[in-house]
Amino acid sequence: MMFAVRMDVEIPHDLDPEIRADLVAREKTYCQERQESGEWVHIWRCVGQYANISVFDVADNEALHQVLWQLPLFPYMRIAVTPLAPHPSDLTANRGAP
Amino acid sequence: MMFAVRMDVEIPHDLDPEIRADLVAREKTYCQERQESGEWVHIWRCVGQYANISVFDVADNEALHQVLWQLPLFPYMRIAVTPLAPHPSDLTANRGAP
Amino acid sequence: MMFAVRMDVEIPHDLDPEIRADLVAREKTYCQERQESGEWVHIWRCVGQYANISVFDVADNEALHQVLWQLPLFPYMRIAVTPLAPHPSDLTANRGAP
Amino acid sequence: MMFAVRMDVEIPHDLDPEIRADLVAREKTYCQERQESGEWVHIWRCVGQYANISVFDVADNEALHQVLWQLPLFPYMRIAVTPLAPHPSDLTANRGAP
Amino acid sequence: MMFAVRMDVEIPHDLDPEIRADLVAREKTYCQERQESGEWVHIWRCVGQYANISVFDVADNEALHQVLWQLPLFPYMRIAVTPLAPHPSDLTANRGAP
Amino acid sequence: MMFAVRMDVEIPHDLDPEIRADLVAREKTYCQERQESGEWVHIWRCVGQYANISVFDVADNEALHQVLWQLPLFPYMRIAVTPLAPHPSDLTANRGAP
Amino acid sequence: MMFAVRMDVEIPHDLDPEIRADLVAREKTYCQERQESGEWVHIWRCVGQYANISVFDVADNEALHQVLWQLPLFPYMRIAVTPLAPHPSDLTANRGAP
Amino acid sequence: MMFAVRMDVEIPHDLDPEIRADLVAREKTYCQERQESGEWVHIWRCVGQYANISVFDVADNEALHQVLWQLPLFPYMRIAVTPLAPHPSDLTANRGAP
Amino acid sequence: MMFAVRMDVEIPHDLDPEIRADLVAREKTYCQERQESGEWVHIWRCVGQYANISVFDVADNEALHQVLWQLPLFPYMRIAVTPLAPHPSDLTANRGAP
Amino acid sequence: MMFAVRMDVEIPHDLDPEIRADLVAREKTYCQERQESGEWVHIWRCVGQYANISVFDVADNEALHQVLWQLPLFPYMRIAVTPLAPHPSDLTANRGAP
Repeated sequence: MMFAVRMDVEIPHDLDPEIRADLVAREKTYCQERQESGEWVHIWRCVGQYANISVFDVADNEALHQVLWQLPLFPYMRIAVTPLAPHPSDLTANRGAP
Repeated sequence: MMFAVRMDVEIPHDLDPEIRADLVAREKTYCQERQESGEWVHIWRCVGQYANISVFDVADNEALHQVLWQLPLFPYMRIAVTPLAPHPSDLTANRGAP
Repeated sequence: MMFAVRMDVEIPHDLDPEIRADLVAREKTYCQERQESGEWVHIWRCVGQYANISVFDVADNEALHQVLWQLPLFPYMRIAVTPLAPHPSDLTANRGAP
Repeated sequence: MMFAVRMDVEIPHDLDPEIRADLVAREKTYCQERQESGEWVHIWRCVGQYANISVFDVADNEALHQVLWQLPLFPYMRIAVTPLAPHPSDLTANRGAP
Repeated sequence: MMFAVRMDVEIPHDLDPEIRADLVAREKTYCQERQESGEWVHIWRCVGQYANISVFDVADNEALHQVLWQLPLFPYMRIAVTPLAPHPSDLTANRGAP
Repeated sequence: MMFAVRMDVEIPHDLDPEIRADLVAREKTYCQERQESGEWVHIWRCVGQYANISVFDVADNEALHQVLWQLPLFPYMRIAVTPLAPHPSDLTANRGAP
Repeated sequence: MMFAVRMDVEIPHDLDPEIRADLVAREKTYCQERQESGEWVHIWRCVGQYANISVFDVADNEALHQVLWQLPLFPYMRIAVTPLAPHPSDLTANRGAP
Repeated sequence: MMFAVRMDVEIPHDLDPEIRADLVAREKTYCQERQESGEWVHIWRCVGQYANISVFDVADNEALHQVLWQLPLFPYMRIAVTPLAPHPSDLTANRGAP
Repeated sequence: MMFAVRMDVEIPHDLDPEIRADLVAREKTYCQERQESGEWVHIWRCVGQYANISVFDVADNEALHQVLWQLPLFPYMRIAVTPLAPHPSDLTANRGAP
Repeated sequence: MMFAVRMDVEIPHDLDPEIRADLVAREKTYCQERQESGEWVHIWRCVGQYANISVFDVADNEALHQVLWQLPLFPYMRIAVTPLAPHPSDLTANRGAP
């Protein structure tokens, strides 16, 4: 089940630089683990923004919430979630078994 | 070069039903041709909306504009374009040559 | 899987009154069928609005989209979808097997 | 009398961690007490948000205000209240005594 | 139980002038009947707007919805409802029995 | 001359608790003095909000500004002012001398 | 008593051209009569907009409402009203009798 | 004197096609005449929009208003005007006489 | 050349009170000097707001920017600029030499 | 490939003045280097704002992102990016080889 998610990051400027660096590093590791597991299907940088547009493929709403809630940068993000369905014009969605 | 595009369709209720049906049919054909050509990489339906979120891979801004401007339903769409760049945490973007 | 959905209805004032009456009647029938099937769990009227707040329990995003897309009044609605997950403080969600 | 309430929590990042933990724990207890009393009928987590959508069943406006005002996290919440009425298509609202 | 309600009227310019005049006349009559019944406590014109701010005193949410839904101009109004509670600084609310 | 005023209070969480308590106490006193003087005609709590909707009856714009500017909590409020006029459907406004 | 008023005009494109021309002509006459009477103190065109920013000097809220309500183009305007008071830094406001 | 101007075009779908074609043709001619005269310095298409971002160099506010007001498509445009000044970091603005 | 400017002041509550008092005093002096020079033509207080609506008459965009940029409270203001042109219905604008 | 970019700067008032001065100086140097390289084609100050409107000419989305991300003031900016294409009415775009 697919979801589009936009994440805008806003880390307070007075956050301790070490804490910040640690958070950013853990965010990257976490993101890549979720890619490896197949849940985080796409991630793109929004040009000129500390933000990304991502696509997730998860079992259900609860699974998506767990992935997002555990993001190390979650407390400093605004997140917008759009549930997705297959589009009737999508060739890849409609080319199945013969 | 990648772009995220959201298209919200609002066809006037008093449009002639035949014109409408023709537009919708041509939209589907056009969309699939652009998928075949490799420019329209992803298209998902936004749940509960007459809308889609799409990803395009085109040569440049001008190429994207030409694709969108020629959409049969263009006059009845609100379109939002977000230019994308590779994300530093994206495994697929960073797995290149050995 | 649960979703909160708000539907705001705006039927054009120049729509043929018979078409309108038919749409409204079919909307009611459809809504009640989906309640009977267990997908449309709650529906409340928003006070002073031609609008409702509803809760759906469906198999997945695709299932929700099919329910909403087939609403007879769909072309005259603005719809906002919020995916829901169990809340950790919810007593009913956490009272399970002994 | 029913109300839909959305609560978005934003705890300042520089709040003392102990105060924070205490607030969150008291919030949970308070929430569950109000569920036990029958006033807090539903609570769902909004996916990907530190937010919930809840439904309250209270005697009147004043009663709802007292419940919300005493939320331990009230100072750190944005709250949106939507008064609800029975919907004419709601099967449960219209199935009364035989 | 008190509610503040703002009503913004927007009658389509191509509505038949007789229908319009009839609606406006019935709106006035209806408004005054509800004042007589004690439900519509205050009504003020917003300066420079085809709009009013009103205060209602009704038994419950359902009662308010019925009053608003039956407004002759309801189909041409945007309505915003704010549930009210007594304010702790209000002298009139706190001057009760001796 | 009447005005509707909505005041939303947002006191910074790191304000000294004594200063805060003093401000809130002085706000209440001030509010009640202005009620006694007949300028602050109505005040209601917005349910679930640290906010009120009030009605003022003052000599002119300048008088209203003086009342609002001197609110002890003024620096921590967002204030929205709506000038009011008698409504042609208002029975109380139009029942004058016999 | 002063008010700043912004008026944005949006005449429907399918309005009869004669009615339109008549409205626009009567608007100009009306505007100039109110300038002659001293109520409409300033009027400026907003560059690139079918809109103006005006300043009115009237006896009270009611008087302003009457002036605006009778604007021939009132049904096709969005109007925003800002009540004004003398500014403490205004030299002209504070240079009075010697 | 420079201004950035964004123009969003929205021609009603039921406008007579000949009138529409004539307007669009006259718009192009007008735009190019103003480029020739040196007032319309830049014009770019916003990708995926029936809109442009332009830069004007005109004598004063009045001159800009005259240019925009006479646009053949003016009645069908939303226009946003941003007055510009030389930027202190602009090399071209600060490279003057030797 | 005329401009309408709205300035909303928001001084951080934790700014040193002496710095604040000094800024406010210098703002007043500066404002009055610009009135004396004829650039700051009007200034009105927005009722109930720490805000003003002003009208400036300056040589060009650059001149306006210099006036605004040097406001002592500039770092704590949100500023909205509207370029103005003479209005065709303005009697004072059109009564010139005989 | 062209992009319009608006940058709004908001430096926290409690940032160390030396750090601030250093950032602003490095921003200016960086901006001018990018002008020299031909990527930063235009930069204008928005009148009355700590903001600029710029035009960039870069190889692709990724190149634009790198330029913006490295802005010394990036952490204190809101940035809005609009991809541009040649406009069919642009004389300079269409005057090419003979």
